[in-house]
Amino acid sequence: APVVDKEVDFAQYFCTYAFLYHQKEMLSDRVRMDAYFNAVFKNKHHFQGRTVLDVGTGSGILAIWSAKAGARKVYAVEATKMAEHARALVKSNGLQNVVEVIEGSMEDVTLPEKVDVIISEWMGYFLLRESMFDSVICARDRWLKPTGVMYPSHARMWLAPIRSGLVDDKWNDYGGAMDDWHRFLDDTKTSYGVDMSVLTNHFDEEQQRYYLQTSLWKNLHPHQVIGAAAIVKEIDCLTATVADVLNVRANLTSIINSPNTRLCGFGGWFDVHFRGRKEDPAQQEIELTTAPNTENSTHWGQQVFLLHPPIHVSEGDDLDISFAMDRAKENHRLMEVELGCKITMSSGTPMPPFSKKFHIE
Amino acid sequence: APVVDKEVDFAQYFCTYAFLYHQKEMLSDRVRMDAYFNAVFKNKHHFQGRTVLDVGTGSGILAIWSAKAGARKVYAVEATKMAEHARALVKSNGLQNVVEVIEGSMEDVTLPEKVDVIISEWMGYFLLRESMFDSVICARDRWLKPTGVMYPSHARMWLAPIRSGLVDDKWNDYGGAMDDWHRFLDDTKTSYGVDMSVLTNHFDEEQQRYYLQTSLWKNLHPHQVIGAAAIVKEIDCLTATVADVLNVRANLTSIINSPNTRLCGFGGWFDVHFRGRKEDPAQQEIELTTAPNTENSTHWGQQVFLLHPPIHVSEGDDLDISFAMDRAKENHRLMEVELGCKITMSSGTPMPPFSKKFHIE
Ligand SMILES: Nc1ncnc2c1ncn2[C@@H]1O[C@H](CSCC[C@H](N)C(=O)O)[C@@H](O)[C@H]1O
Ligand SMILES: Nc1ncnc2c1ncn2[C@@H]1O[C@H](CSCC[C@H](N)C(=O)O)[C@@H](O)[C@H]1O
Repeated sequence: APVVDKEVDFAQYFCTYAFLYHQKEMLSDRVRMDAYFNAVFKNKHHFQGRTVLDVGTGSGILAIWSAKAGARKVYAVEATKMAEHARALVKSNGLQNVVEVIEGSMEDVTLPEKVDVIISEWMGYFLLRESMFDSVICARDRWLKPTGVMYPSHARMWLAPIRSGLVDDKWNDYGGAMDDWHRFLDDTKTSYGVDMSVLTNHFDEEQQRYYLQTSLWKNLHPHQVIGAAAIVKEIDCLTATVADVLNVRANLTSIINSPNTRLCGFGGWFDVHFRGRKEDPAQQEIELTTAPNTENSTHWGQQVFLLHPPIHVSEGDDLDISFAMDRAKENHRLMEVELGCKITMSSGTPMPPFSKKFHIE
Repeated sequence: APVVDKEVDFAQYFCTYAFLYHQKEMLSDRVRMDAYFNAVFKNKHHFQGRTVLDVGTGSGILAIWSAKAGARKVYAVEATKMAEHARALVKSNGLQNVVEVIEGSMEDVTLPEKVDVIISEWMGYFLLRESMFDSVICARDRWLKPTGVMYPSHARMWLAPIRSGLVDDKWNDYGGAMDDWHRFLDDTKTSYGVDMSVLTNHFDEEQQRYYLQTSLWKNLHPHQVIGAAAIVKEIDCLTATVADVLNVRANLTSIINSPNTRLCGFGGWFDVHFRGRKEDPAQQEIELTTAPNTENSTHWGQQVFLLHPPIHVSEGDDLDISFAMDRAKENHRLMEVELGCKITMSSGTPMPPFSKKFHIE
């Protein structure tokens, strides 16, 4: 697995989590908060008298809830200086005898005992961005008792065909950037005597990557989903390995359910469930979904992969989609996606298949 | 000197320069381009038959001009992959026999000979941000002949009292962020049973740093300059050492020249000159200034340091300013500034002195 230098990882990835401003954004996401809150407090039997590990405690919120739900001991591990604030928050809420905040990378930390529960909010955009689930797997394999429970216990990635005006905006932005480049070439030749046209191809590639091949964060309206959503990947958090999430491959089908519309691309999202463990199930199962939703949008939004140009489709058209996601070569916390699609019109006529590459940045 | 890990430096600093988009922004700055173009072509005697080193060649533009002005040989050193594009550009302009593009850090590169001229566009915001001048000094000390010439030859930092509505905007933004925090505290207590008020002080510090203590990029209108500009630092590029630019200290005076206005802070900018060398002077001296200017603004803009609250001042008020700039502890390419000021009103009455710290990010 391509892993960046540890110092670089700290500078690029962890740094943002060291700001309360960023923790506050997550703490203000009501869908997220309600799901974890209910998962803990509607399943107190998993916490009462038990030991808990919170992987990436941030402000300490999940560790504090676990303690309030009756945990005997909570280990709250956080890589950044946010650990100090978590410690202050634990103390000001009178839980310092239960919650022990440990500043360090989960991978490097040693606990005095194994735990009954691992709780963690590790999900990035489109579930796997940030690759933080690796750290949860590492924690589980080292510190979860054989009878232990994962919070959340399951996760799924979803993909659906969408329409979106963004496809036109991005195409226009790209066109504008290239027009500007050609004016720039003229100016540089005229004013400064240097012909830069040899760089046009590379500039074009750079702009295409930026405007057309980078997936976008968006809160889609449910009406923008023009076909059945399909499951890309199911993860059992108790048994999944890093190898299972390293290269995600799937063949999906979907069917357009809107009349006369444009297939502008695909929207990706995820959900997670808190179901406990087969032998020790949840009393009340909780779901956290980041699907398009007018009232309950989350800070994760959806990840949008646009198609240029969009394709005219209609109700009953069948999509045969191949999905491949790998980690970016230069940064294991970012992703590269390849989406292939064969459309068969409801009449039975196939359209020319296509395949596009995207970067999740 | 606090220097970051080399890999981190590459990820944080050099990465942006690897994009043609970013090089194009610099190549589209006409003030910058005209200054270097004229510096080279109005002083061909410095280039004809001579050897040149371009420190940080980027797209290769300065190396190409040096060759076109008659250089015998130009070494064009560039740390990023942009070196490949520079090489292509050199070739497509038929200069591959004169310009040799070398991909590598200036600090690590070995040249086959010493050079007559070092040309470089190393200036960051407020001159020294990016600390790239260190690399020029290193190049000069290793590769410039004793009789060699620096392009540019001199640099100066300037500071002037300003007025700006930004002072109100930023104050309001900060107030809004704190109001929002207090609503967040209430919600978190009510909905999720956790009192986060112990984090208020730190959140406040974080927001103050972000909104009030971070200097801003701005293209000021000359009317916003309300008093005489003063020189903070003069650099002779032929003799300056890293120690000279590591900790900039200055005591300045200025006098307000606008009636009844608000001192909202200070604007900082720089200029550089191309004068050649005493024994080998320029035929035509060229100046590149980034001072506030309605028609000739540059991509450097000015660096604005705001005072909260602003202070009522008027024509004839005297400012006694102390200026201190150091490199940021965590990143040697960023700066920390402390500005002290004593104002004596034209009536002779002194105002209470003040001192503020800023981050240049
Ligand atoms: N390997 C690792 N070791 C320790 N902390 C990690 C980690 N990987 C990510 N983190 C931390 O995990 C946190 C994820 S964000 C979630 C924060 C908190 N649990 C909440 O739900 O509000 C961040 O603060 C990040 O710094
Ligand atoms: N120590 C170093 N060694 C090599 N290149 C460096 C360097 N420090 C900065 N650079 C490069 O210097 C360039 C500065 S920007 C100026 C580019 C070009 N000379 C022009 O005038 O348009 C960047 O491309 C950056 O990557």
